[in-house]
Amino acid sequence: MQYPAPIEKLIDSYMKLPGIGSKTATRLAFYTIDMDKSDVKAFSDSLIDASTKLHYCSICGNITEQDPCEICSDPTRDQKSILVVEQPKDVMSFDRTNEYHGLYHVLHGVLSPIEGRGPEDLNIESLIKRLQNNTAVHEVIVATNATPEGEATAQYLARLIKPAQIKVTRLAHGLAVGSDIEYADEMTLLKAVEGRTEI
Amino acid sequence: MQYPAPIEKLIDSYMKLPGIGSKTATRLAFYTIDMDKSDVKAFSDSLIDASTKLHYCSICGNITEQDPCEICSDPTRDQKSILVVEQPKDVMSFDRTNEYHGLYHVLHGVLSPIEGRGPEDLNIESLIKRLQNNTAVHEVIVATNATPEGEATAQYLARLIKPAQIKVTRLAHGLAVGSDIEYADEMTLLKAVEGRTEI
Repeated sequence: MQYPAPIEKLIDSYMKLPGIGSKTATRLAFYTIDMDKSDVKAFSDSLIDASTKLHYCSICGNITEQDPCEICSDPTRDQKSILVVEQPKDVMSFDRTNEYHGLYHVLHGVLSPIEGRGPEDLNIESLIKRLQNNTAVHEVIVATNATPEGEATAQYLARLIKPAQIKVTRLAHGLAVGSDIEYADEMTLLKAVEGRTEI
Repeated sequence: MQYPAPIEKLIDSYMKLPGIGSKTATRLAFYTIDMDKSDVKAFSDSLIDASTKLHYCSICGNITEQDPCEICSDPTRDQKSILVVEQPKDVMSFDRTNEYHGLYHVLHGVLSPIEGRGPEDLNIESLIKRLQNNTAVHEVIVATNATPEGEATAQYLARLIKPAQIKVTRLAHGLAVGSDIEYADEMTLLKAVEGRTEI
Protein backbone atom coordinates (compact mmCIF):
# COMPACT_ATOMS: atom_id res chain seq x y z
CA MET A 1 0.00 0.00 0.00
CA GLN A 2 1.14 3.51 -0.80
CA TYR A 3 0.07 6.98 0.21
CA PRO A 4 -2.54 8.53 -2.13
CA ALA A 5 -0.90 9.66 -5.40
CA PRO A 6 -0.93 13.42 -4.67
CA ILE A 7 1.01 12.84 -1.42
CA GLU A 8 3.51 10.51 -3.10
CA LYS A 9 4.16 13.11 -5.81
CA LEU A 10 4.60 15.88 -3.25
CA ILE A 11 7.00 13.71 -1.21
CA ASP A 12 9.00 13.06 -4.40
CA SER A 13 9.17 16.80 -5.10
CA TYR A 14 10.31 17.64 -1.58
CA MET A 15 12.98 14.95 -1.82
CA LYS A 16 14.52 16.73 -4.83
CA LEU A 17 15.54 19.57 -2.49
CA PRO A 18 19.03 19.38 -0.96
CA GLY A 19 19.29 17.92 2.55
CA ILE A 20 15.73 16.59 2.58
CA GLY A 21 15.36 12.81 2.87
CA SER A 22 12.28 10.63 2.70
CA LYS A 23 11.28 11.06 6.39
CA THR A 24 11.50 14.86 6.30
CA ALA A 25 9.79 14.97 2.89
CA THR A 26 6.90 12.89 4.27
CA ARG A 27 6.59 15.16 7.29
CA LEU A 28 6.60 18.26 5.07
CA ALA A 29 4.03 16.75 2.68
CA PHE A 30 1.61 15.96 5.50
CA TYR A 31 2.20 19.40 6.93
CA THR A 32 1.41 20.94 3.54
CA ILE A 33 -1.96 19.18 3.45
CA ASP A 34 -2.97 20.87 6.70
CA MET A 35 -1.69 24.30 5.59
CA ASP A 36 -3.96 27.18 4.64
CA LYS A 37 -4.99 26.73 1.00
CA SER A 38 -3.99 30.33 0.31
CA ASP A 39 -0.49 29.74 1.71
CA VAL A 40 -0.07 26.66 -0.47
CA LYS A 41 -1.24 28.63 -3.51
CA ALA A 42 1.27 31.39 -2.70
CA PHE A 43 4.02 28.79 -2.29
CA SER A 44 3.11 27.16 -5.61
CA ASP A 45 3.05 30.52 -7.42
CA SER A 46 6.32 31.70 -5.91
CA LEU A 47 8.05 28.53 -7.11
CA ILE A 48 6.96 29.24 -10.68
CA ASP A 49 7.81 32.95 -10.37
CA ALA A 50 11.29 32.27 -9.03
CA SER A 51 11.89 29.72 -11.74
CA THR A 52 10.67 31.85 -14.67
CA LYS A 53 11.05 35.54 -13.80
CA LEU A 54 14.67 35.53 -12.65
CA HIS A 55 17.71 35.77 -14.90
CA TYR A 56 21.40 36.39 -14.52
CA CYS A 57 22.52 39.99 -15.04
CA SER A 58 24.39 40.19 -18.35
CA ILE A 59 27.04 42.42 -16.75
CA CYS A 60 27.78 40.96 -13.32
CA GLY A 61 26.05 37.55 -13.33
CA ASN A 62 23.96 38.30 -10.23
CA ILE A 63 20.39 37.06 -10.06
CA THR A 64 17.90 39.73 -11.08
CA GLU A 65 14.46 40.42 -12.48
CA GLN A 66 15.66 43.30 -14.67
CA ASP A 67 18.77 43.35 -16.88
CA PRO A 68 21.20 44.97 -16.06
CA CYS A 69 20.57 44.35 -12.37
CA GLU A 70 19.76 46.96 -9.75
CA ILE A 71 23.39 47.31 -8.67
CA CYS A 72 24.93 47.52 -12.17
CA SER A 73 22.40 50.15 -13.24
CA ASP A 74 22.85 52.28 -10.10
CA PRO A 75 25.09 55.28 -11.00
CA THR A 76 25.52 56.23 -7.31
CA ARG A 77 27.57 53.11 -6.63
CA ASP A 78 31.34 53.36 -6.54
CA GLN A 79 32.42 52.39 -10.06
CA LYS A 80 36.08 52.03 -9.04
CA SER A 81 35.94 48.62 -7.40
CA ILE A 82 34.50 45.23 -8.24
CA LEU A 83 34.02 42.59 -5.55
CA VAL A 84 34.14 39.08 -7.01
CA VAL A 85 32.05 36.40 -5.27
CA GLU A 86 31.26 32.74 -5.90
CA GLN A 87 27.45 32.78 -5.62
CA PRO A 88 24.60 35.30 -6.05
CA LYS A 89 23.68 35.02 -2.37
CA ASP A 90 27.19 36.21 -1.41
CA VAL A 91 26.35 39.58 -3.00
CA MET A 92 23.60 40.04 -0.43
CA SER A 93 25.92 39.02 2.43
CA PHE A 94 28.34 41.84 1.53
CA ASP A 95 25.64 44.37 0.76
CA ARG A 96 24.05 43.79 4.16
CA THR A 97 27.21 45.12 5.85
CA ASN A 98 26.33 48.55 4.40
CA GLU A 99 30.05 49.32 4.15
CA TYR A 100 30.87 48.24 0.62
CA HIS A 101 29.28 50.43 -2.03
CA GLY A 102 31.11 49.27 -5.17
CA LEU A 103 30.14 46.83 -7.89
CA TYR A 104 29.99 43.02 -7.84
CA HIS A 105 30.80 40.12 -10.12
CA VAL A 106 29.42 36.62 -9.59
CA LEU A 107 31.58 33.69 -10.78
CA HIS A 108 28.93 30.98 -10.25
CA GLY A 109 31.42 28.59 -8.72
CA VAL A 110 35.17 28.13 -8.24
CA LEU A 111 37.88 26.34 -10.16
CA SER A 112 37.81 22.69 -9.18
CA PRO A 113 39.92 20.13 -11.07
CA ILE A 114 38.25 17.33 -9.05
CA GLU A 115 34.78 18.31 -10.26
CA GLY A 116 36.17 19.12 -13.71
CA ARG A 117 35.36 22.83 -13.46
CA GLY A 118 37.82 25.03 -15.38
CA PRO A 119 37.96 28.80 -16.09
CA GLU A 120 35.64 28.42 -19.11
CA ASP A 121 32.88 27.05 -16.83
CA LEU A 122 32.94 30.16 -14.67
CA ASN A 123 31.74 33.70 -15.34
CA ILE A 124 35.36 34.91 -15.81
CA GLU A 125 35.41 35.95 -19.46
CA SER A 126 32.76 38.61 -18.85
CA LEU A 127 34.79 39.93 -15.89
CA ILE A 128 37.83 40.43 -18.14
CA LYS A 129 35.67 42.11 -20.80
CA ARG A 130 34.19 44.33 -18.11
CA LEU A 131 37.66 45.43 -16.99
CA GLN A 132 38.74 46.10 -20.59
CA ASN A 133 35.66 48.19 -21.39
CA ASN A 134 35.53 50.04 -18.11
CA THR A 135 38.82 51.79 -17.34
CA ALA A 136 37.34 53.35 -14.20
CA VAL A 137 37.95 50.18 -12.20
CA HIS A 138 40.99 50.48 -9.91
CA GLU A 139 40.58 47.47 -7.67
CA VAL A 140 39.22 43.94 -7.90
CA ILE A 141 38.50 42.40 -4.47
CA VAL A 142 38.42 38.61 -4.71
CA ALA A 143 35.93 37.38 -2.11
CA THR A 144 35.84 33.68 -2.88
CA ASN A 145 35.50 31.35 0.12
CA ALA A 146 38.54 30.53 2.27
CA THR A 147 38.71 27.00 0.83
CA PRO A 148 41.55 25.51 -1.26
CA GLU A 149 39.39 25.97 -4.40
CA GLY A 150 38.52 29.53 -3.41
CA GLU A 151 42.21 30.34 -2.87
CA ALA A 152 43.22 28.78 -6.20
CA THR A 153 40.53 30.78 -8.00
CA ALA A 154 41.75 33.97 -6.32
CA GLN A 155 45.34 33.27 -7.42
CA TYR A 156 44.17 32.54 -10.96
CA LEU A 157 42.21 35.79 -11.18
CA ALA A 158 45.15 37.76 -9.76
CA ARG A 159 47.51 36.41 -12.44
CA LEU A 160 44.94 37.23 -15.10
CA ILE A 161 44.09 40.76 -13.99
CA LYS A 162 47.36 42.16 -12.56
CA PRO A 163 49.03 42.69 -15.98
CA ALA A 164 46.32 45.29 -16.71
CA GLN A 165 47.69 47.43 -13.81
CA ILE A 166 44.56 46.87 -11.73
CA LYS A 167 45.00 46.23 -8.00
CA VAL A 168 43.80 42.75 -7.02
CA THR A 169 43.09 42.18 -3.30
CA ARG A 170 41.90 39.25 -1.21
CA LEU A 171 39.73 39.24 1.95
CA ALA A 172 41.63 39.15 5.25
CA HIS A 173 41.98 35.83 7.05
CA GLY A 174 41.79 35.68 10.83
CA LEU A 175 39.56 35.01 13.79
CA ALA A 176 35.84 35.46 13.24
CA VAL A 177 34.43 38.26 15.39
CA GLY A 178 33.05 36.80 18.63
CA SER A 179 34.87 33.50 18.17
CA ASP A 180 36.97 31.64 20.73
CA ILE A 181 40.69 31.04 20.14
CA GLU A 182 40.21 27.63 21.77
CA TYR A 183 38.08 26.48 18.85
CA ALA A 184 40.03 28.10 16.01
CA ASP A 185 41.98 25.76 13.74
CA GLU A 186 45.77 26.08 13.33
CA MET A 187 45.67 27.60 9.85
CA THR A 188 43.27 30.32 11.00
CA LEU A 189 45.50 31.14 14.01
CA LEU A 190 48.57 31.24 11.76
CA LYS A 191 46.83 33.63 9.36
CA ALA A 192 45.59 35.73 12.28
CA VAL A 193 49.17 36.15 13.58
CA GLU A 194 50.52 36.84 10.09
CA GLY A 195 47.91 39.51 9.45
CA ARG A 196 48.17 41.18 12.91
CA THR A 197 47.64 44.95 13.06
CA GLU A 198 48.95 47.57 15.47
CA ILE A 199 46.56 48.87 18.12
CA MET B 1 18.93 46.08 -0.28
CA GLN B 2 16.82 42.97 -0.60
CA TYR B 3 16.85 39.93 -2.87
CA PRO B 4 14.66 40.32 -5.98
CA ALA B 5 10.96 40.01 -5.07
CA PRO B 6 10.41 36.48 -6.47
CA ILE B 7 13.25 35.13 -4.27
CA GLU B 8 12.00 36.96 -1.18
CA LYS B 9 8.52 35.50 -1.69
CA LEU B 10 9.90 32.00 -2.19
CA ILE B 11 12.05 32.31 0.96
CA ASP B 12 8.94 33.40 2.90
CA SER B 13 7.05 30.37 1.61
CA TYR B 14 9.81 27.94 2.53
CA MET B 15 9.99 29.49 6.00
CA LYS B 16 6.33 28.57 6.59
CA LEU B 17 7.38 24.89 6.60
CA PRO B 18 8.20 23.32 9.97
CA GLY B 19 11.89 23.20 10.95
CA ILE B 20 13.00 25.53 8.17
CA GLY B 21 14.58 28.81 9.26
CA SER B 22 15.72 31.76 7.21
CA LYS B 23 19.17 30.34 6.32
CA THR B 24 17.80 27.02 5.09
CA ALA B 25 14.93 28.76 3.29
CA THR B 26 17.41 31.00 1.46
CA ARG B 27 19.53 28.01 0.48
CA LEU B 28 16.44 26.15 -0.79
CA ALA B 29 15.21 29.21 -2.72
CA PHE B 30 18.54 29.65 -4.54
CA TYR B 31 18.63 25.92 -5.21
CA THR B 32 15.12 26.13 -6.69
CA ILE B 33 16.23 28.80 -9.15
CA ASP B 34 18.87 26.46 -10.55
CA MET B 35 16.50 23.48 -10.70
CA ASP B 36 15.07 22.10 -13.93
CA LYS B 37 12.04 24.19 -14.90
CA SER B 38 10.01 20.98 -15.37
CA ASP B 39 10.86 19.81 -11.85
CA VAL B 40 9.78 23.16 -10.41
CA LYS B 41 6.54 22.97 -12.40
CA ALA B 42 5.91 19.43 -11.05
CA PHE B 43 6.66 20.64 -7.51
CA SER B 44 4.28 23.59 -7.92
CA ASP B 45 1.51 21.37 -9.31
CA SER B 46 1.93 18.70 -6.66
CA LEU B 47 1.52 21.34 -3.94
CA ILE B 48 -1.81 22.43 -5.41
CA ASP B 49 -2.91 18.81 -5.98
CA ALA B 50 -2.09 17.75 -2.44
CA SER B 51 -3.86 20.79 -1.08
CA THR B 52 -7.04 20.45 -3.14
CA LYS B 53 -7.52 16.79 -4.11
CA LEU B 54 -7.13 15.20 -0.70
CA HIS B 55 -9.84 14.86 1.91
CA TYR B 56 -10.38 12.99 5.14
CA CYS B 57 -12.25 9.69 4.80
CA SER B 58 -15.73 10.17 6.28
CA ILE B 59 -15.49 6.78 7.99
CA CYS B 60 -11.97 6.50 9.41
CA GLY B 61 -10.53 10.03 9.07
CA ASN B 62 -7.53 8.88 7.03
CA ILE B 63 -6.30 11.05 4.15
CA THR B 64 -7.66 9.93 0.82
CA GLU B 65 -8.57 10.97 -2.71
CA GLN B 66 -11.77 8.90 -2.77
CA ASP B 67 -14.39 8.69 -0.03
CA PRO B 68 -14.62 6.18 1.66
CA CYS B 69 -10.88 5.54 1.53
CA GLU B 70 -9.16 2.54 -0.05
CA ILE B 71 -8.97 0.67 3.24
CA CYS B 72 -12.55 1.31 4.40
CA SER B 73 -13.94 0.25 1.01
CA ASP B 74 -11.84 -2.93 0.83
CA PRO B 75 -14.10 -5.92 1.75
CA THR B 76 -11.10 -8.28 2.01
CA ARG B 77 -9.79 -6.50 5.10
CA ASP B 78 -10.51 -7.96 8.52
CA GLN B 79 -13.64 -6.12 9.68
CA LYS B 80 -13.26 -7.40 13.25
CA SER B 81 -10.59 -5.01 14.47
CA ILE B 82 -9.96 -1.28 14.35
CA LEU B 83 -6.50 0.15 15.03
CA VAL B 84 -6.71 3.70 16.37
CA VAL B 85 -3.81 6.03 15.50
CA GLU B 86 -3.01 9.70 16.07
CA GLN B 87 -2.09 10.79 12.55
CA PRO B 88 -2.77 9.69 8.96
CA LYS B 89 0.89 8.82 8.41
CA ASP B 90 0.71 6.30 11.27
CA VAL B 91 -1.73 4.27 9.17
CA MET B 92 0.99 3.78 6.59
CA SER B 93 3.55 2.82 9.26
CA PHE B 94 1.34 -0.06 10.43
CA ASP B 95 0.28 -1.11 6.94
CA ARG B 96 3.93 -1.37 5.88
CA THR B 97 4.44 -4.18 8.41
CA ASN B 98 2.13 -6.33 6.24
CA GLU B 99 0.95 -8.11 9.39
CA TYR B 100 -2.10 -6.10 10.36
CA HIS B 101 -4.99 -6.47 7.92
CA GLY B 102 -7.82 -4.86 9.87
CA LEU B 103 -9.34 -1.39 9.72
CA TYR B 104 -8.02 1.92 11.01
CA HIS B 105 -9.30 5.04 12.70
CA VAL B 106 -7.39 8.33 12.75
CA LEU B 107 -7.91 10.61 15.75
CA HIS B 108 -6.02 13.63 14.33
CA GLY B 109 -4.27 14.31 17.61
CA VAL B 110 -4.39 13.33 21.28
CA LEU B 111 -6.06 14.72 24.37
CA SER B 112 -3.92 17.56 25.71
CA PRO B 113 -5.19 19.81 28.52
CA ILE B 114 -2.08 22.01 28.12
CA GLU B 115 -2.88 22.75 24.48
CA GLY B 116 -6.59 22.90 25.27
CA ARG B 117 -7.46 19.87 23.16
CA GLY B 118 -10.42 17.89 24.52
CA PRO B 119 -12.35 14.85 23.22
CA GLU B 120 -14.58 17.07 21.03
CA ASP B 121 -11.51 18.27 19.10
CA LEU B 122 -10.56 14.73 18.10
CA ASN B 123 -12.16 12.30 15.65
CA ILE B 124 -13.64 10.28 18.53
CA GLU B 125 -17.39 10.72 18.01
CA SER B 126 -17.20 9.06 14.59
CA LEU B 127 -15.30 6.12 16.14
CA ILE B 128 -18.10 5.57 18.65
CA LYS B 129 -20.75 5.81 15.89
CA ARG B 130 -18.74 3.34 13.83
CA LEU B 131 -18.72 0.83 16.69
CA GLN B 132 -22.46 1.28 17.25
CA ASN B 133 -23.32 0.77 13.57
CA ASN B 134 -20.87 -2.06 12.95
CA THR B 135 -21.38 -4.92 15.40
CA ALA B 136 -18.69 -6.99 13.64
CA VAL B 137 -15.89 -5.18 15.49
CA HIS B 138 -14.47 -7.30 18.32
CA GLU B 139 -11.32 -5.39 19.16
CA VAL B 140 -10.10 -1.81 19.23
CA ILE B 141 -6.30 -1.56 19.31
CA VAL B 142 -5.23 1.84 20.63
CA ALA B 143 -1.96 2.73 18.91
CA THR B 144 -1.41 6.27 20.16
CA ASN B 145 2.20 7.26 20.87
CA ALA B 146 3.87 6.17 24.11
CA THR B 147 3.69 9.71 25.49
CA PRO B 148 1.73 10.87 28.57
CA GLU B 149 -0.90 12.38 26.23
CA GLY B 150 -1.03 9.19 24.14
CA GLU B 151 -1.49 7.11 27.31
CA ALA B 152 -4.23 9.39 28.63
CA THR B 153 -6.06 9.22 25.30
CA ALA B 154 -5.81 5.42 25.34
CA GLN B 155 -7.26 5.29 28.86
CA TYR B 156 -10.06 7.65 27.86
CA LEU B 157 -10.98 5.53 24.81
CA ALA B 158 -10.89 2.34 26.89
CA ARG B 159 -13.34 3.79 29.43
CA LEU B 160 -15.59 4.92 26.60
CA ILE B 161 -15.60 1.69 24.58
CA LYS B 162 -15.35 -1.13 27.15
CA PRO B 163 -19.02 -0.85 28.35
CA ALA B 164 -20.03 -1.94 24.81
CA GLN B 165 -18.33 -5.32 25.44
CA ILE B 166 -15.62 -4.61 22.87
CA LYS B 167 -12.06 -5.62 23.73
CA VAL B 168 -9.75 -2.59 23.96
CA THR B 169 -6.01 -3.28 23.72
CA ARG B 170 -2.88 -1.16 23.82
CA LEU B 171 0.43 -1.64 21.98
CA ALA B 172 3.15 -3.43 23.96
CA HIS B 173 5.82 -1.34 25.65
CA GLY B 174 9.39 -2.60 25.78
CA LEU B 175 12.77 -2.44 24.16
CA ALA B 176 12.84 -1.42 20.51
CA VAL B 177 14.15 -4.22 18.29
CA GLY B 178 17.89 -3.74 17.77
CA SER B 179 18.22 -1.28 20.67
CA ASP B 180 20.78 -1.36 23.46
CA ILE B 181 19.72 -1.82 27.10
CA GLU B 182 22.46 0.68 28.04
CA TYR B 183 20.58 3.48 26.31
CA ALA B 184 17.02 2.54 27.31
CA ASP B 185 15.33 4.80 29.85
CA GLU B 186 14.08 3.49 33.20
CA MET B 187 10.37 3.52 32.31
CA THR B 188 11.01 1.49 29.18
CA LEU B 189 13.07 -1.09 31.11
CA LEU B 190 10.37 -1.29 33.79
CA LYS B 191 7.69 -1.88 31.12
CA ALA B 192 9.92 -4.43 29.39
CA VAL B 193 10.28 -6.43 32.64
CA GLU B 194 6.55 -6.14 33.42
CA GLY B 195 5.59 -7.36 29.98
CA ARG B 196 8.16 -10.20 29.81
CA THR B 197 7.11 -13.34 27.92
CA GLU B 198 8.19 -16.97 28.36
CA ILE B 199 10.67 -18.37 25.85
